[in-house]
Amino acid sequence: MTSQSLDVVGIGNAIVDVIASADDAFLEKHDMTKGSMMLIDEERAEQIYSAMGSTVITSGGSAGNTIAGIASLGGKTGFIGLVAEDELGHAYRHDITAAGARFPTKAATGGPATARCLILVTPDAQRTMNTFLGACVNLGSNDIDADLVRSAAVTYLEGYLYDAPTAMEAFHTAADIAHAAGRKVALSLSDAFCVNRHRDEFKKLVDHHVDILFANESEILALFETGSLDEAIAQLRGMIDIAAVTRGAHGSTVVTKEQTIEVPAAPVAHVVDTTGAGDLYAAGFLFGYTRGAPMHECARLGSLVAAEIIAHFGARPQSPLDQLARNIAF
Amino acid sequence: MTSQSLDVVGIGNAIVDVIASADDAFLEKHDMTKGSMMLIDEERAEQIYSAMGSTVITSGGSAGNTIAGIASLGGKTGFIGLVAEDELGHAYRHDITAAGARFPTKAATGGPATARCLILVTPDAQRTMNTFLGACVNLGSNDIDADLVRSAAVTYLEGYLYDAPTAMEAFHTAADIAHAAGRKVALSLSDAFCVNRHRDEFKKLVDHHVDILFANESEILALFETGSLDEAIAQLRGMIDIAAVTRGAHGSTVVTKEQTIEVPAAPVAHVVDTTGAGDLYAAGFLFGYTRGAPMHECARLGSLVAAEIIAHFGARPQSPLDQLARNIAF
Repeated sequence: MTSQSLDVVGIGNAIVDVIASADDAFLEKHDMTKGSMMLIDEERAEQIYSAMGSTVITSGGSAGNTIAGIASLGGKTGFIGLVAEDELGHAYRHDITAAGARFPTKAATGGPATARCLILVTPDAQRTMNTFLGACVNLGSNDIDADLVRSAAVTYLEGYLYDAPTAMEAFHTAADIAHAAGRKVALSLSDAFCVNRHRDEFKKLVDHHVDILFANESEILALFETGSLDEAIAQLRGMIDIAAVTRGAHGSTVVTKEQTIEVPAAPVAHVVDTTGAGDLYAAGFLFGYTRGAPMHECARLGSLVAAEIIAHFGARPQSPLDQLARNIAF
Repeated sequence: MTSQSLDVVGIGNAIVDVIASADDAFLEKHDMTKGSMMLIDEERAEQIYSAMGSTVITSGGSAGNTIAGIASLGGKTGFIGLVAEDELGHAYRHDITAAGARFPTKAATGGPATARCLILVTPDAQRTMNTFLGACVNLGSNDIDADLVRSAAVTYLEGYLYDAPTAMEAFHTAADIAHAAGRKVALSLSDAFCVNRHRDEFKKLVDHHVDILFANESEILALFETGSLDEAIAQLRGMIDIAAVTRGAHGSTVVTKEQTIEVPAAPVAHVVDTTGAGDLYAAGFLFGYTRGAPMHECARLGSLVAAEIIAHFGARPQSPLDQLARNIAF
């Protein structure tokens, strides 16, 4: 049996973020739905890039952001995701390994380029994402390093993996390996549109294959096709051990079989870019969880870490997060 | 005679910045002099990149930053600088043209890669820069678009160009074309180490070929080999029409034949990364100058624009600057 040497292994789309400021008129002109993630092809990626302003380029991807955050907090992490053998892929590998994560997945050769997400940040700090999945569409079960998964207390999966058929299979392979080794499986619902695309499968996942769920309010409402958060939470409670529902400036709600815990958001002087807020909340929460912290402290650390990430462009920490963990009672 | 259709044309090294947080121990371990710009070769660039943390990539280069800033303020600008035909060169071209500048310089083929500057930002917000000049070393007089230079009220040159012999020639070609067309020539002294490398030439430049000088305190002290700012300012006054000396948190001093004007720094809630502070001060100052603003208002706009840039990673504006210009009396 593989010993538990890691805290969290993340599996997700390995994406480089290309970020620029834009106004609402830009979103309208280019038929973008504010606040959402849209899948685009390479040609549209080129069109949008040509039209957008001066950019900041930094590694992204939901699960990758979470893993980089846990590593920065001091956790032991690994990541599985597919880049191509190109400059952006090289940058992605540099960043996740520099953060401290193990990243055994070999780069793909001969196929599409490394994935990129063109992100427009409006003056209200909302982010609108346009993702060209590139090499990520070829992630498959063969890429799941079983020993790496078995070695982690938690395997963290992003719902976005369901947007590519072989990645969806890889998702299930990983979850099965983790559970067979007696480990926990965590899932992020990723995006309300993603939930709409895969609602029935996501419900089955939450009911049968997931121990810890991360979702924001709109994702959870989309999952249960309701306008009532109370109703969604009641349904969640019947399905899952732990759910953390993030609600932006209103903080987060942790739902367990026994409790509903409300935790306020951490204060931020000036919110610049909300990209990665949910990913980094999950990082703080899971770091606390793997250290045995009580639920409200997990959520509080999630809020503190999310507050760091929304104070600047991009979804990777710009200063070490380990100081933040000192505020938490384990 | 070419009509004056542009405000400022910048000529400088076309460099992509690769930025990461680091602590002082990292700088020591890698023999870096805090706060300075060191020239490195490609091999050392790879070594430093491998060792540094997760990065943010964004266009940089001193004159390029200034031009992007003037464009964001609403000025009409052009840029001359050499990138290679590679991904970073493509990104550089995108960013400066997206900012609104004309950029007629063709990419170099077959030579070194696009220049990059590996920047380590310490917790005190100081930046330490390691520059691989790459394609920039081949900028030559042939790259100077004479019509573009003639069309601008001010030609802005960075002292860093003196670090490559053909770029130095291009510098002089451009300055001569500008003056022959009755335009003004502005110079940034760039860096105290750069001043030490080229002191005699820089003194001749300031005395005979430059109308507006930008420098920080340490650069001006290095130029005149003195520890006294008053003495340096007295020498400057004998040589040049306008000098703007930046002094970090202490604001800036504008020196003309008749006056010495002190202008305070603009307040910043949290200084994150001082990269580009001088470049963007020059942007604000020159935008005001080309609009006919009085000296103290030019300096005040410089301070406001610098304050935006030091509140985040990277030296390109992350939100449109044109609002800032509304605070200025022209």
